Amino acid sequence: MKSLALLTDLYQLTMAYGYFQNKMHGYDSVFHLTFRNHPFKGNYTIACGLHSVIKYLQEFKFTTEDIDYLATLRGNNNRLLFDDKFLDYLQSMNFSCNIDAVPEGMAVFPHEPIVRVQGPLIQCQLIETALLNIINFETLISTKASRVCQAAMGDPVLEFGLRRAQGIDGAITASRAAYVGGCAGTSNVLAGKLFDIPVKGTHAHSWVMCFEDELEAFEKYADALPNNCVLLVDTYNTEEGIYKAVKVGHQLQDKGYKLAGIRLDSGDLLSLSQQARNILDSANLHDTAIIASNDLDEHSIKDLKSNGAKIDTWGVGTKLITAYDQPALGGVYKLSAIHKPRENWRYTIKLSEQANKISDPGVLQVRRFFDENSNPVRDILFNTHKFDTNTQQENENSVLLLKPVFVEGCCVYTNPPLKDIRKCALRNAEIFSHLTQYPVNIDLDLITLKLEIIEKISSPKLRTIKSATNNQAISNT
Amino acid sequence: MKSLALLTDLYQLTMAYGYFQNKMHGYDSVFHLTFRNHPFKGNYTIACGLHSVIKYLQEFKFTTEDIDYLATLRGNNNRLLFDDKFLDYLQSMNFSCNIDAVPEGMAVFPHEPIVRVQGPLIQCQLIETALLNIINFETLISTKASRVCQAAMGDPVLEFGLRRAQGIDGAITASRAAYVGGCAGTSNVLAGKLFDIPVKGTHAHSWVMCFEDELEAFEKYADALPNNCVLLVDTYNTEEGIYKAVKVGHQLQDKGYKLAGIRLDSGDLLSLSQQARNILDSANLHDTAIIASNDLDEHSIKDLKSNGAKIDTWGVGTKLITAYDQPALGGVYKLSAIHKPRENWRYTIKLSEQANKISDPGVLQVRRFFDENSNPVRDILFNTHKFDTNTQQENENSVLLLKPVFVEGCCVYTNPPLKDIRKCALRNAEIFSHLTQYPVNIDLDLITLKLEIIEKISSPKLRTIKSATNNQAISNT
Repeated sequence: MKSLALLTDLYQLTMAYGYFQNKMHGYDSVFHLTFRNHPFKGNYTIACGLHSVIKYLQEFKFTTEDIDYLATLRGNNNRLLFDDKFLDYLQSMNFSCNIDAVPEGMAVFPHEPIVRVQGPLIQCQLIETALLNIINFETLISTKASRVCQAAMGDPVLEFGLRRAQGIDGAITASRAAYVGGCAGTSNVLAGKLFDIPVKGTHAHSWVMCFEDELEAFEKYADALPNNCVLLVDTYNTEEGIYKAVKVGHQLQDKGYKLAGIRLDSGDLLSLSQQARNILDSANLHDTAIIASNDLDEHSIKDLKSNGAKIDTWGVGTKLITAYDQPALGGVYKLSAIHKPRENWRYTIKLSEQANKISDPGVLQVRRFFDENSNPVRDILFNTHKFDTNTQQENENSVLLLKPVFVEGCCVYTNPPLKDIRKCALRNAEIFSHLTQYPVNIDLDLITLKLEIIEKISSPKLRTIKSATNNQAISNT
Repeated sequence: MKSLALLTDLYQLTMAYGYFQNKMHGYDSVFHLTFRNHPFKGNYTIACGLHSVIKYLQEFKFTTEDIDYLATLRGNNNRLLFDDKFLDYLQSMNFSCNIDAVPEGMAVFPHEPIVRVQGPLIQCQLIETALLNIINFETLISTKASRVCQAAMGDPVLEFGLRRAQGIDGAITASRAAYVGGCAGTSNVLAGKLFDIPVKGTHAHSWVMCFEDELEAFEKYADALPNNCVLLVDTYNTEEGIYKAVKVGHQLQDKGYKLAGIRLDSGDLLSLSQQARNILDSANLHDTAIIASNDLDEHSIKDLKSNGAKIDTWGVGTKLITAYDQPALGGVYKLSAIHKPRENWRYTIKLSEQANKISDPGVLQVRRFFDENSNPVRDILFNTHKFDTNTQQENENSVLLLKPVFVEGCCVYTNPPLKDIRKCALRNAEIFSHLTQYPVNIDLDLITLKLEIIEKISSPKLRTIKSATNNQAISNT
């Protein structure tokens, strides 16, 4: 990945400029990336995206080309937006923040930080947008995939979404996130190569249409790929297609191979799969799997399974790769503490009329407690500034969710192998998908701090300011 | 962009292998990329993505690394999927197709090809998935943006979606597509740099939270950026925030600058914008614009405008960048004609029980007719093989929508400057958004051909095949 320092909202740069002009850019600051609600009205979220965050931050640097571009930007009155001193500073800036984050594959809950950033204010701000972009999207897709795989109850789920994904990278990183969430493979060959994910596929209707006869098409496919023969049976008439596939299955048997599967891609998957299973079983093709695709998601898979569909493998495309029913996770990134030189840390919140939208102050960490059977029993969100170092250690019945990833700009974290991340996600989904009321408690000191700050900043001085500015307005007119 | 030859579904490669084994890979073939319904229940679609398709095809080449990876893939029984002869062929393969496509920014309709591909069967097939990925996504977003801009009725719409976009590229290409659709600018600085799109932005809540006092925060921002001063007024209490912004507005006036705008990012945008306009006007800040953001889309903008909201500029994020209410366009890519050496062209369709899903045969083109005022009156879809060359020319009252883009693998098309594409899209939206019943006719010869093929392939031979395969099944058990 080339440096993506410019992959940011313009306002991060105008704020950076403001901090720089006000000599605040070096203030030690803390931001947390959190979300407010589980996606898909679910009861757990699978963290994902840290690998991309690491790559992004390791390459973080404004290039000469970037700086040259910024030097051309103009404000509303056509004057240049940034001065040279600031641009020189940006160009020489090296990433030096501390990053703590929840490992990929772990279940996380609303208001728990997935990423904590501490460092010079200007840097914390400049990386906000990219961090949100990456974590929001990958966490969304790993969670969607996890839900789909839970619905499939152990049947393999294949991610077939590339053609409907939101752009090229939207496909590639989503294929990885879908694998993290539990998918058994992807159709996306490039994602397979980049991340060592199993790649899977059958053939398209066009294969059948290239021949004048469907049976000939099946026979020729079996000849060419006897080791990987899955036949798509619904190009013209599905029942007809199944009988032709049976014929080819027997031809394969005669040659010492087998028909690995048939694929249904349209129509009533429930009755067609039952019909197909009957036909295949009657023809002694018990080992031939039935693969189904066509606008599937966790809801339709659950329905099909509970109604007795005879489907062995689920190909899930559009609704997984775009998280169709909720295509964005509303993750936010809020300042929670700032340290002006020669003063104490000041803790901050973002107020809102909706309590759920008020952010938490401090330098946060999450402790997850386990019972004697190693099952999680609750999380506690706390402000590390209020605890001595000893109480911030892990112990036999609890772990800390946020792990050190960068220390003063140096990466100190090795992402586990993808297969292990996937196992972790599957284990977490197994546990948390069944817990509708998992308790996330807030430490008492943190609640007290939060209430103090709310009290302080929401004091009713509106009237005073209103009349003062009214007077000012009158004197200005 | 590096070669993305592997950005494809595995089944394209297994089919490619099948064609190669059956010596069909060189058959001259024709595929069309079409969609079946306008997205967002709308009445027009703005074509987008051709610039990415051109880049992708110009770089199309399997690298040694790609081939090495493919050589490791194994089938269901763990035998290698592809042989060396095929892999050597892939590595030496040069893209040589003809591509015709609808220019970016043009309105297109269901069943009209956006892209037509003609060339060796193996190549047509291998590029399918990437073409679908690119065109589906960019067309979806340009259309969404066009709808949002139509709802804003000429007010500037700014695309603020980077943090919620589906991945990095999901953001960058979407920013471009949103600009094509009519947005006035983007917050995404990298997209601004790459495509020369105006970049826009204000500041975040964190700016305010970095100061102990909101008024101080506003004053410091105005000091640093007097030429681009838009103040976000809702960090704590919106009304209070507006009065403080007024104060800063007067300070700016005193220094010879002006407060460019205030931004509302939460609460009831209708009443807050009216209140803000009153306060600003009473304070003689008539030129200070009101910018609103917060989960906006074409529907909420329409509502706000019709109820008298006093909003000058619309910041639209999540719902635009992810096309939230329909996050995928269901574009498909179907074989329509194939030419076996020493035989005639054979025309093909994909059957379906849903008439809307039956594809069109032939080598298609679309002619758009205009009235004497240059307003489009109807499109006609026809099979170019049934027309002599003369009737395939453009004339004073009609144009052909598909333009030559690649001829035998060489790019012959220059994408117009982005600003011109945007103008074209705006003009098209202006016309087609008001036409609820724009007629797209199918040429009579094409209908006849289609019916002949349907007749031929849907003949009721099911019973014969069924009994034959039953007998076969019995003899095999």
